[in-house]
Amino acid sequence: MLLHMFYFFFFIPCVLFVVLPQPLVVDGLREIRTKQPHFDESPTYLWPLPAEFTSGDEVFTVDPSLELVVDGAGGASDIVREAFERYRKIIFEHSGSDYVAGRFRFKRVLRESIISEYDVSQLKITVHSDNEELQFGVDESYTLLVSAGEVTIEANTVYGALRGIETFSQLCAFDYTTKTVQIHKAPWVIHDQPRFAYRGLMLDTSRHYLPATVIKQIIDSMSYAKFNVLHWHIIDEESFPLEVPSYPNLWNGSYTKWERYTVEDAYDIVNFAKTRGINVMAEVDVPGHAESWGAGYPDLWPSPTCREPLDVSKNFTFDVVSGILTELRKIFPFELFHLGGDEVNTDCWSQTPHVKQWLQNNNFATKDAYRYFVLKAQEIALSKNWTPVNWEETFNAFPSKLSPQTIVHNWLGPGVCPKAAAKGFRCIYSNQGVWYLDHLDVPWDEVYTAEPLEGISDASQQKLVIGGEVCMWGETVDTSDIQQTIWPRAAAAAERLWSPRESTLKANITSTTLPRLLNFRCLLNRRGVAAAPVRHFYARQAPDRAGSCYVQ
Amino acid sequence: MLLHMFYFFFFIPCVLFVVLPQPLVVDGLREIRTKQPHFDESPTYLWPLPAEFTSGDEVFTVDPSLELVVDGAGGASDIVREAFERYRKIIFEHSGSDYVAGRFRFKRVLRESIISEYDVSQLKITVHSDNEELQFGVDESYTLLVSAGEVTIEANTVYGALRGIETFSQLCAFDYTTKTVQIHKAPWVIHDQPRFAYRGLMLDTSRHYLPATVIKQIIDSMSYAKFNVLHWHIIDEESFPLEVPSYPNLWNGSYTKWERYTVEDAYDIVNFAKTRGINVMAEVDVPGHAESWGAGYPDLWPSPTCREPLDVSKNFTFDVVSGILTELRKIFPFELFHLGGDEVNTDCWSQTPHVKQWLQNNNFATKDAYRYFVLKAQEIALSKNWTPVNWEETFNAFPSKLSPQTIVHNWLGPGVCPKAAAKGFRCIYSNQGVWYLDHLDVPWDEVYTAEPLEGISDASQQKLVIGGEVCMWGETVDTSDIQQTIWPRAAAAAERLWSPRESTLKANITSTTLPRLLNFRCLLNRRGVAAAPVRHFYARQAPDRAGSCYVQ
Repeated sequence: MLLHMFYFFFFIPCVLFVVLPQPLVVDGLREIRTKQPHFDESPTYLWPLPAEFTSGDEVFTVDPSLELVVDGAGGASDIVREAFERYRKIIFEHSGSDYVAGRFRFKRVLRESIISEYDVSQLKITVHSDNEELQFGVDESYTLLVSAGEVTIEANTVYGALRGIETFSQLCAFDYTTKTVQIHKAPWVIHDQPRFAYRGLMLDTSRHYLPATVIKQIIDSMSYAKFNVLHWHIIDEESFPLEVPSYPNLWNGSYTKWERYTVEDAYDIVNFAKTRGINVMAEVDVPGHAESWGAGYPDLWPSPTCREPLDVSKNFTFDVVSGILTELRKIFPFELFHLGGDEVNTDCWSQTPHVKQWLQNNNFATKDAYRYFVLKAQEIALSKNWTPVNWEETFNAFPSKLSPQTIVHNWLGPGVCPKAAAKGFRCIYSNQGVWYLDHLDVPWDEVYTAEPLEGISDASQQKLVIGGEVCMWGETVDTSDIQQTIWPRAAAAAERLWSPRESTLKANITSTTLPRLLNFRCLLNRRGVAAAPVRHFYARQAPDRAGSCYVQ
Repeated sequence: MLLHMFYFFFFIPCVLFVVLPQPLVVDGLREIRTKQPHFDESPTYLWPLPAEFTSGDEVFTVDPSLELVVDGAGGASDIVREAFERYRKIIFEHSGSDYVAGRFRFKRVLRESIISEYDVSQLKITVHSDNEELQFGVDESYTLLVSAGEVTIEANTVYGALRGIETFSQLCAFDYTTKTVQIHKAPWVIHDQPRFAYRGLMLDTSRHYLPATVIKQIIDSMSYAKFNVLHWHIIDEESFPLEVPSYPNLWNGSYTKWERYTVEDAYDIVNFAKTRGINVMAEVDVPGHAESWGAGYPDLWPSPTCREPLDVSKNFTFDVVSGILTELRKIFPFELFHLGGDEVNTDCWSQTPHVKQWLQNNNFATKDAYRYFVLKAQEIALSKNWTPVNWEETFNAFPSKLSPQTIVHNWLGPGVCPKAAAKGFRCIYSNQGVWYLDHLDVPWDEVYTAEPLEGISDASQQKLVIGGEVCMWGETVDTSDIQQTIWPRAAAAAERLWSPRESTLKANITSTTLPRLLNFRCLLNRRGVAAAPVRHFYARQAPDRAGSCYVQ
């Protein structure tokens, strides 16, 4: 009765022919519509693909009054209950919104006249641990069983339960003929867990300010693809939007007095993310990319006319760095903290008299001063019980000096994680050629086939690659276009980071992966996320003609 | 103490210099930041501009525990209470979301340590009528008084109260220094009402299906600009997403079985819109633009190879039209109903033998058959107590034959409403050269300066222009880009339709209107709406560099 997961790969191509007989041909769409063969098919697509799963050939109906039953030490968690309520709205969107409850009683009557009883009326969630700490490496595994009469999710942590609920929501599809939510290819047995512990998306709120509401929208969408780290590149040279109470002039570097985050806003974002199983890793990029700091404290500039990097010669500079980190430590419980360290042009140091003098006094070349700054920042972070993350330049320049705890954040190109792992460093993969979302000329399949472990064959070294991250730099991205620039390409990376390497490698990318991604993009759209058409070469391009979401 | 509204126009330019010293110059932004003069200014911008208002020079603080007090026969309405709760979240967004309530108790403590008492702790809303019927011409007027200790909104209907609450929300601004919500330039006396009774936005769900969630997002955003009609162009030649229970095969013309609206979905959208004071005008475009109908009922095509317009020769065609309208009448209570009638190419009628024969039998030229179809559809709509709306082609072709109740919907160019009004017809202005949002090469100021009454000097004829509508045709618009294509340009039309002609004409568009629109765009962004940069020549263009929302 239950079939092995490989069934999935053999089965999909048959379904596919129906869904995509003549992709992107509008006249072909008309043919689909008039022939309608696809109306008899209900493929169930999951994104990202679970680690192990089997499915059957039955169709179960789901009761719109689906009841949550919890068990285990952690089952009574607010995080679980609130997630259930969120997903109930998603799964039963066609039952009308809350506010109309009672106004359309006929709807239930109508439904009940068709369906006398449902196959699934309970979702049972068992969470073994009541420890809700969300840390690096938290157990996100879950087992999802769908059988007649019962759906059970079993997880060690509430965060595993969240992943299971997301998967359950993707199994549920509204059937327009019977007007019920159905689960196709039931029964299901899913044992799932992530391939990598770190699955990140970076947001840049310095080039363009993103309102907290917008960041929360993005966090919600991240959870649909099972991302688990929001790397918040809060400040950069263009603007400093964050409040730092001990240095209250720092956010004078914001674009305007309305484009700011209070400490409470930041807390709120961190806790919102936590309820979605997403850690927030803050970044304070030093010593470059920090010109905006000087808007409030011009002493941080080498001089008023030469403003970057931060003045390495002053104790005040490190007082401010330490002050910022002290404040941020109260807000960001995640054990990883990003110290930047990229693209440091030290000309201002060698050209500004008092800094030049300091370099000479210390017998420092500018590269020595760069190392001095980075290591001093690392010390500050380490003293606050943070694991420092640095962009790869620090590793490329002085690997043997870095704290061995350093996590190297690759970006410049391929081949860095192999080198970092060979030296015993942990690594995050973000090769800009494939995982920088601001590179608009990278189509989805190039994002998808990128491989964080490329060039690393030794198993113990592979383990040092903790995962990867897609980066959404903000020069041409603001509230108006950020969702369409992130999605659907971020989803391609999300599956690479979640699903077993074998299953993603084995898949025929055109015949099995593409239709699942098309489906996931339409799922994002249904949930209100402005994910762009999948098939365009350039990202975030408008659809170029009328047509179905499922082929564009 | 209270200053006349013209104060506003003299005051703004002074503020402006501070906000926009070197627009779009990044180096200029840096100067703004380091000089920071604008941090001392808090201009209050309203969009659309109220009919009459006076303001003062005080700053009031607003209690985050703002209490709603209602009065009048209609004050206890759910619509008012729910709106208050929605706007409370918008106004007090920096107080954290519901779900964190209790987790950050220190926040209140922090705030209270700064603020001992608030100037405004009550919002009193008086609604005189308990009639919640939302119909064409419903009274949307309101009076908003903001004085120390009390804010009152007085309106005849709940819909006037909604407009007043929106205006109140725009007066409220979070101050990052004191961490309180403030109202600047208080006290305020605002007497407001719309210039036109019909202020529409058209959505096209045939070229691309828009999920119900997305339509609701757009409805919410419409209410921020005080639009009051969603013209729902549900079906067209490309797809037929709507369920019609008496002709259950019609929605076989949907792109896929997942891109559909049930009757309940449509009800839900209508009622969601009602709670925002927005009527939904449905459109069933006949006899052209209807090819998708034949996917379910091929008899509606003249022949399988010549599919448009609908077969004028068969009674079955009119049975289906009548059947659809019967079903839609149950869903759409708005008294206006759009019957299309545009772009009818009758070649299939003259080329298909049985239709050609029918034309000859009736002694009809094809243009006579076009008129016959349109008038028959009008009769069906009128019999259902609907006021028919037609695209202007029907008026251009046979004005004297149209039902005198017909509302002519202009689109082809300027000059049609004057002609229609001269013949006694009511008219909706949508000149495609300025108000078709799919025309991307129309910058915001051309949208703004369009004038529905252009070419009409007679006051009684002016009254026949019931308003205007911006149209968002869907060929290159789907969930991924619809918000950025609608906004901010739709807002330009919204002010034209709401605010007194004198005040919008008098304004210096660059020095007073533009900064208000920039501010409104940023307000939309803060509320999670993907409104695009204002200043680009082409619509929905990505920001081309880093910078503040308030200048882009």
